[in-house]
Amino acid sequence: MFFASDNAGPVHPDVMKRVIAANDAHQMPYGKDIIMDEVRNRIRDVFEAPEAAVYLVATGTAANVLALACYTQPWQTTFCSKVAHIQMDECNAPEFYAGGAKLTLIDTEDKMTPAALDAAIAGQTVGNVHGAQPGAVSITQVTERGSVHTLDELRALTAVAKAHNLPVHLDGARFANAQVSLGCTAAEMTWKSGVDVVSFGGTKNGCMGVEAVVFFDPSKAWEFELRRKRGAHLFSKHRFLSAQMAGYLEGDTWLEIARQSNGHAAYLAEGLREKGAEFLHSPDANMIFARWPRSVHQKLHDAGAKYYLWDGLLEGPAEELVAARLVCDWSIGRDNIDAFLSHF
Amino acid sequence: MFFASDNAGPVHPDVMKRVIAANDAHQMPYGKDIIMDEVRNRIRDVFEAPEAAVYLVATGTAANVLALACYTQPWQTTFCSKVAHIQMDECNAPEFYAGGAKLTLIDTEDKMTPAALDAAIAGQTVGNVHGAQPGAVSITQVTERGSVHTLDELRALTAVAKAHNLPVHLDGARFANAQVSLGCTAAEMTWKSGVDVVSFGGTKNGCMGVEAVVFFDPSKAWEFELRRKRGAHLFSKHRFLSAQMAGYLEGDTWLEIARQSNGHAAYLAEGLREKGAEFLHSPDANMIFARWPRSVHQKLHDAGAKYYLWDGLLEGPAEELVAARLVCDWSIGRDNIDAFLSHF
Amino acid sequence: MFFASDNAGPVHPDVMKRVIAANDAHQMPYGKDIIMDEVRNRIRDVFEAPEAAVYLVATGTAANVLALACYTQPWQTTFCSKVAHIQMDECNAPEFYAGGAKLTLIDTEDKMTPAALDAAIAGQTVGNVHGAQPGAVSITQVTERGSVHTLDELRALTAVAKAHNLPVHLDGARFANAQVSLGCTAAEMTWKSGVDVVSFGGTKNGCMGVEAVVFFDPSKAWEFELRRKRGAHLFSKHRFLSAQMAGYLEGDTWLEIARQSNGHAAYLAEGLREKGAEFLHSPDANMIFARWPRSVHQKLHDAGAKYYLWDGLLEGPAEELVAARLVCDWSIGRDNIDAFLSHF
Amino acid sequence: MFFASDNAGPVHPDVMKRVIAANDAHQMPYGKDIIMDEVRNRIRDVFEAPEAAVYLVATGTAANVLALACYTQPWQTTFCSKVAHIQMDECNAPEFYAGGAKLTLIDTEDKMTPAALDAAIAGQTVGNVHGAQPGAVSITQVTERGSVHTLDELRALTAVAKAHNLPVHLDGARFANAQVSLGCTAAEMTWKSGVDVVSFGGTKNGCMGVEAVVFFDPSKAWEFELRRKRGAHLFSKHRFLSAQMAGYLEGDTWLEIARQSNGHAAYLAEGLREKGAEFLHSPDANMIFARWPRSVHQKLHDAGAKYYLWDGLLEGPAEELVAARLVCDWSIGRDNIDAFLSHF
Repeated sequence: MFFASDNAGPVHPDVMKRVIAANDAHQMPYGKDIIMDEVRNRIRDVFEAPEAAVYLVATGTAANVLALACYTQPWQTTFCSKVAHIQMDECNAPEFYAGGAKLTLIDTEDKMTPAALDAAIAGQTVGNVHGAQPGAVSITQVTERGSVHTLDELRALTAVAKAHNLPVHLDGARFANAQVSLGCTAAEMTWKSGVDVVSFGGTKNGCMGVEAVVFFDPSKAWEFELRRKRGAHLFSKHRFLSAQMAGYLEGDTWLEIARQSNGHAAYLAEGLREKGAEFLHSPDANMIFARWPRSVHQKLHDAGAKYYLWDGLLEGPAEELVAARLVCDWSIGRDNIDAFLSHF
Repeated sequence: MFFASDNAGPVHPDVMKRVIAANDAHQMPYGKDIIMDEVRNRIRDVFEAPEAAVYLVATGTAANVLALACYTQPWQTTFCSKVAHIQMDECNAPEFYAGGAKLTLIDTEDKMTPAALDAAIAGQTVGNVHGAQPGAVSITQVTERGSVHTLDELRALTAVAKAHNLPVHLDGARFANAQVSLGCTAAEMTWKSGVDVVSFGGTKNGCMGVEAVVFFDPSKAWEFELRRKRGAHLFSKHRFLSAQMAGYLEGDTWLEIARQSNGHAAYLAEGLREKGAEFLHSPDANMIFARWPRSVHQKLHDAGAKYYLWDGLLEGPAEELVAARLVCDWSIGRDNIDAFLSHF
Repeated sequence: MFFASDNAGPVHPDVMKRVIAANDAHQMPYGKDIIMDEVRNRIRDVFEAPEAAVYLVATGTAANVLALACYTQPWQTTFCSKVAHIQMDECNAPEFYAGGAKLTLIDTEDKMTPAALDAAIAGQTVGNVHGAQPGAVSITQVTERGSVHTLDELRALTAVAKAHNLPVHLDGARFANAQVSLGCTAAEMTWKSGVDVVSFGGTKNGCMGVEAVVFFDPSKAWEFELRRKRGAHLFSKHRFLSAQMAGYLEGDTWLEIARQSNGHAAYLAEGLREKGAEFLHSPDANMIFARWPRSVHQKLHDAGAKYYLWDGLLEGPAEELVAARLVCDWSIGRDNIDAFLSHF
Repeated sequence: MFFASDNAGPVHPDVMKRVIAANDAHQMPYGKDIIMDEVRNRIRDVFEAPEAAVYLVATGTAANVLALACYTQPWQTTFCSKVAHIQMDECNAPEFYAGGAKLTLIDTEDKMTPAALDAAIAGQTVGNVHGAQPGAVSITQVTERGSVHTLDELRALTAVAKAHNLPVHLDGARFANAQVSLGCTAAEMTWKSGVDVVSFGGTKNGCMGVEAVVFFDPSKAWEFELRRKRGAHLFSKHRFLSAQMAGYLEGDTWLEIARQSNGHAAYLAEGLREKGAEFLHSPDANMIFARWPRSVHQKLHDAGAKYYLWDGLLEGPAEELVAARLVCDWSIGRDNIDAFLSHF
């Protein structure tokens, strides 16, 4: 009954198989491995972007902050939801990598609205040397609250960015989960919707530790390579990053893994709904934010269920509702979900 | 005949076995995995340092620059050999992570001499606000030229640092190779010789991508954790770093791997010596810098041998000597070495 | 009728007199001038802080960001009002000088409330490596909206900071105006109220370009000197900074200048009140935020009055109210104020 | 007998006159003062560069590091003499402002040679992601050792830079002294000789604290404005920087001041030569590096002469030679020089 995070689950066998296979003989280091050629081509195919610049790093934070740094000057500010991962969970890495650039936080419980984004950008006057200059816009898909922007929602946000001539970054740590949820293509969810650069996550969706950064504008390629090395994120035995991504993207393994995770979450959400749980956000992908009585939480906890209490209130009346975050990875079995639900 | 780098070789089976074994069920992320507890204890044992703070990262550059940043203020300078990896091969990462601190380069072809180090430190007057203030001293062991400091040489350098109240960092990307070469203990090569923090390499010696940073002064622990996260180097699926290091340090696997690499290099060096090659540096560990005629180089190249030409001169008279760097990893077979030598 | 800013007014004759007098013979550079000894002693007297470390820089932003950088690690965040100068008007200088540290903005139209400050600090969990760590608290006195924290208000804010073990910075670009407004001592408005370091402004109150940074904890002295030099803010002909501050603090010149500015503003505010203007904030010192009809604004503008329209709406119905910011410096004559009021 | 530094002398009356005159009524802040318009035009005339972007800052270090930051990416390195001010006397400010870029030091006692510069640039391979990428070349004119590059020497250095497609910065803290020494025009010493941006010093040559940064390529203008503000170097009462520069450049005041300083130094050097002093460097402008016996130094010291002992050896045999640095500013009287020489 492990619902603490999808970054705590095992590596998918299709990914592991390629990692093991990569351990053969010698391969040129630092991204010159032949598996990377395969990966680059595959990602260009997946994104229908034959010119895209494609790079691998090992952590989601590295993908986000290196991508953003290529689009943000130190005197600029990046616009994002106040609950974005880059704001809440990256310990000032975005500011570090962008030389002290700011994040301007859009006040929202989850997704940014186009109106709020527009107002925030308009609030940073271009040409006023006293204030931060507008930089990039960063959108998280799946959001940190488990919801998924529709293509229309994405396009409304990128349209605001474009109206201000700002580039758009997509934090796709759970990209596949979002794509499966929307039933669209990778291209539709990115450049066809106005995204300039995407952090294309693998780690949370069955890989060991690999994320791709995909630039639809390849003019950023060399700058990214220098920033990656300077950030100490260029792997010598890079083939093991390539191998993960190669296994991940073979056939539709990556989408199949996400289908499993999302499916588990849908099944769990349905069960919780029947048990009377209240949802804080729409469980569009593989994350659920919901409330139930503390007494139920206590039973789950005693039974060994793992998940985060979202409001942090551990003591109080038994009948009081607590808020929980549950994340399903591909390896969660239905039996675990049923066992979980049985405690309600 | 692959002698280009030890970072191009395969992962040792003992390491891979633990990686595969780690892929079981769920494990808490971000360094809270139980394998890390095992690793921490094992490293403390290996270093006879029960209080040491122990962390894992995935690249050697990350280990070096995060370790140094904990010991260098932005207005200070780190003293190192002008051929140190941190100067030559890390694309300003040391400066980036230390907030714009300098490196002061000791003019030498390989190892620093204590006298040159002392003069360089004395040249940066403490308390003169105009110049950089003295920061850390960084020593590379095995050096970038393949030689190994004796314990006496190490101690002479750290004594200079201590006389100026400066901390000492050891870049041990090839730590095991050095230790095997000296036949000493890990403690003798570090804190017993005046080293405060060590980058303890695994990647080049049979791992996939893992380096430990070991602080003998645990007061730096929390700062390191924050710097690692802020540098985007904290892995969510950290267990796969832990697993590599656990396999590496099981029994004396790590030393056995280094014994193999060093042994291959000794065998190759002996063969080269017989063939009349000239050595640029003492081949103390698993790297060889040597010269032979361009005509021989051409034959080797045609036969598919891989190594770096060190002086970069690709065209010239056939009888002219060219300089080459050869690195042996554990997986190089004797047959490959014999084949290589057969072209002389 | 110049009410655009107090940084646009002339230097007070008592200050200029000392600048001219300082231009005699040679003086040791870089803060070793004898006038600085006088200034240091005088400031320690003024603040009743015989151990204080005292430094001069030429801009208010330099004072703020150098002071804050001494109290903020790169992985921390400084808490301030969302309208603070360090957020709105320093073009990411705080982030730059603190190595990429964040600002956490308290949502308020003017002053922070202790409750909001407390909630914001509590929101950044100490020991959670994923989020920014709590750093300093910065309070602006006079605020950017022209109001002055009472001593009780100040102490309530610093008490929150202290309860979280955080240091407190006071941005006193208009320190003298606030002190005159409160009728208290400099010590009462700073260390006696829990302030650790103050940017003690001179420029806006009759100097040419000089601000003191006063550390009540002198252990920060050497770090500040290094940061100032590294920031390129150490003046060779430092005596001309010293001379300004010496003239400013002679007798109670500095308070007298502030009395004049505040007096002008009070007289103007009284006149505006009689004319029916609405006030957006309490005009406690030398700044006024008020509303009047666009038709009046047009008359004032046509008559040559200079001030900022705060809502930026230049076109609209004549009877609609616009919001204006007026700042009085010491040199504004009563005749100018009367002339201004005559247009209502 | 004050020869310690030209940054310790008084402000020239022609400069002070304009400072005092600027203290009239109100002026728009932050560089919008009308005096700046005059200065901009005057500098464009002086440099025969009608399109040049012209800015003022208050310290030489600010001018250098802001100018360089506009031409150096964080993963690049700037090439300069190992005795350059940016290396020796700016406490890592160049690295700070350029986001952790390096300085690559050319090994020389004074001026760089074109061959050494070329070798150093060639040593940083363009396109090798492991090493720093080549950035700008910085030349100091007058050098830190008091010598002046001839136009031919300048052009030979800039030709090397241009051959590698690198921009050239000129640190002209003593620009006027160099120009007077060469008898050339400002244009000849800058853009006509391949210089892209110049730190045009005023402070050491009779101003209070002002340096111009002149970009011959105006496309850097807005970036400079943002960097200046972000560095906390934009003055609110900017008119007092403008006024200094306006007075300095009125007629040929600036050259006349330099003629006086250089003339004093020439007279002093001639006297020293007659007394048998040995010169370490050619005293081309207003600085002298020379040796005389310790006994003479003792007499001079006892008589109150102020200058720096360059080798720092204060104790030793009376007849031993010590090395001294003497700097003449415009205000040094001949009587002081005669008095100085009388002690030999």
